[in-house]
Amino acid sequence: MRIALGLEYDGSSYKGWQTQPGGGTVQDVLEAAVAQIAGAPVRTLCAGRTDTGVHALAQVVHFDTGAARPDSAWVKGVNTHLPRSVAVRWAARVEDDFHARFCATSRRYQYMLINRPVRPAIWDGRAGWFHLALDERAMQQAAQHLVGRHDFSAFRSAECQAVSPVRDLRRLEIRRDGEVLRFLLEANAFLHHMVRNIVGCLVYVGKGKYPPEWIAGVLAGRDRAKAAPTFGPQGLYLTGIDYDPRWNLPAFVPDPLFPPTDSPET
Amino acid sequence: MRIALGLEYDGSSYKGWQTQPGGGTVQDVLEAAVAQIAGAPVRTLCAGRTDTGVHALAQVVHFDTGAARPDSAWVKGVNTHLPRSVAVRWAARVEDDFHARFCATSRRYQYMLINRPVRPAIWDGRAGWFHLALDERAMQQAAQHLVGRHDFSAFRSAECQAVSPVRDLRRLEIRRDGEVLRFLLEANAFLHHMVRNIVGCLVYVGKGKYPPEWIAGVLAGRDRAKAAPTFGPQGLYLTGIDYDPRWNLPAFVPDPLFPPTDSPET
Repeated sequence: MRIALGLEYDGSSYKGWQTQPGGGTVQDVLEAAVAQIAGAPVRTLCAGRTDTGVHALAQVVHFDTGAARPDSAWVKGVNTHLPRSVAVRWAARVEDDFHARFCATSRRYQYMLINRPVRPAIWDGRAGWFHLALDERAMQQAAQHLVGRHDFSAFRSAECQAVSPVRDLRRLEIRRDGEVLRFLLEANAFLHHMVRNIVGCLVYVGKGKYPPEWIAGVLAGRDRAKAAPTFGPQGLYLTGIDYDPRWNLPAFVPDPLFPPTDSPET
Repeated sequence: MRIALGLEYDGSSYKGWQTQPGGGTVQDVLEAAVAQIAGAPVRTLCAGRTDTGVHALAQVVHFDTGAARPDSAWVKGVNTHLPRSVAVRWAARVEDDFHARFCATSRRYQYMLINRPVRPAIWDGRAGWFHLALDERAMQQAAQHLVGRHDFSAFRSAECQAVSPVRDLRRLEIRRDGEVLRFLLEANAFLHHMVRNIVGCLVYVGKGKYPPEWIAGVLAGRDRAKAAPTFGPQGLYLTGIDYDPRWNLPAFVPDPLFPPTDSPET
């Protein structure tokens, strides 16, 4: 049978999601914990392969197992075997043709950036930081050039393995709450480093290095070398994966400290 | 001359504020960093001696030094010598009769509690957790019995060194935002473990073990053994120290994710 899990993790001590020979990834610790409950090795597949240092509030994975367990065992049982930085939020038996990655219709990310002269301490490892004043109106203007279906080659890392560089960026909002800037993004899928490259370019605009229109030229040029440096992973959170309602997946209760992309409080 | 500093720290990796022979406290790392800029050893005094694992968004300290440095050196310079979990937010030269502890007119703390069945991962080490549903209205009713000037012996640890157990608790509010409960407290000063013991008792009321009136009896009994166990340090944040305006201390810009006690959004 196929089981889907909803996951939350602080990625700051992991080498990203995807398993590596030396271990140290979220997938490694999750599969070890699930195997304890399943009584046999399992292989998990996730919706959004987060990078080193990137966090998730709402990751979705699936795995196949012959072990019949109540949903609560896949939550509470697995959690007792996970490090404190990773937690299963929910579990559900799903139909065999559900696939965490291929059935996802969109992904949502949030980048949290502390914008003040002094580096953050409480948020160290869990927020980005920029010391100069940023003009969020200019960034919001620039963001409008990126929304839509485009070839995002300019915002794609050299290691990106996606077949096509075309993505449908459905939402890109910047909100300021005092010294905290939040970048809320939603797309059908994201290229490798795409969010952090977009944030880097928006920060260039926000600090006044380039006008908002500059980003349209970067996009059209499809040349990574013309864009800004990749922003750090610390502030990046996977905040949601959308699926067709027919899969009947449990909902994540949103963390009020990380308002979801589609919240109405803009 | 006397210098005041405003500090932020993630206390999860420290043995509290106060220096110890073996090191590992916030005071130890701060004094080492300040000494680098002062060019000589310094001894700091703080407004609120936080315990092991307790955080501060707005700690205030002072020290005396013969080194004339611009305020920016006491901020940026000291920050380059501090671990990433501690940051100086501001620095100011103050008059010689300013004293971070004795001039403080009130202290504010916030306890952040995640109230959901599954333990937190993103907030591990930086929030408390309680798995059963809590009734915040019952807790708010109980809290009213504690507000005011009382003998708080029932909420004081055995190690408390304060001369008097009487404190003026000026505010105790409980706010819920989804799965996050915040306890906002303000007093002239707090006894050792007082906030965490109050939170423990309020959780007893919130889960229905006792009615709200029970806490009035605990207070009147002045017997620590009658109160609930001390709640964990992970969710406790020192969020403000108040001084007479004549000291002209810089203001902390509040972290929007930790709204201050006196914010109007109740």
